Amino acid sequence: MRLAEVFGVNMRRARQMRGLTLEAFADQVDLAYSYVGEIERGRRNPTLDVVERIAEALRVDPLELLGGASNQHGRD
Amino acid sequence: MRLAEVFGVNMRRARQMRGLTLEAFADQVDLAYSYVGEIERGRRNPTLDVVERIAEALRVDPLELLGGASNQHGRD
Repeated sequence: MRLAEVFGVNMRRARQMRGLTLEAFADQVDLAYSYVGEIERGRRNPTLDVVERIAEALRVDPLELLGGASNQHGRD
Repeated sequence: MRLAEVFGVNMRRARQMRGLTLEAFADQVDLAYSYVGEIERGRRNPTLDVVERIAEALRVDPLELLGGASNQHGRD
């Protein structure tokens, strides 16, 4: 999985664990609903500033949202 | 420090530890010299795909390049 895909999966999980709808969350981070949904599906390639903004809104460390599948990257 | 700044600092350190000049490294990752230099100085906001590409070229886990100062973010 690409890092952007790992991020999307973890972000969706963290959002759902907080009981936030995609719509409510998109509002909270002030990003377009469709953009946030696409990030969650790994179809976007967010910048580090967006990653940080999303992590802050979810009150988790950005590294938590980027980890978990990093050993499965299939490097080299 | 913003996540992008943490990344820049860690990336430069990792590159220098490998004895790579900025120029040689930029060549290796196929990114513009000036862009790589600006990322290292925290003046750019790279995407996760770029972060991953740089980490792969340096043969480190992307999380290593993003960590280390995450407790100093001054969240909220």
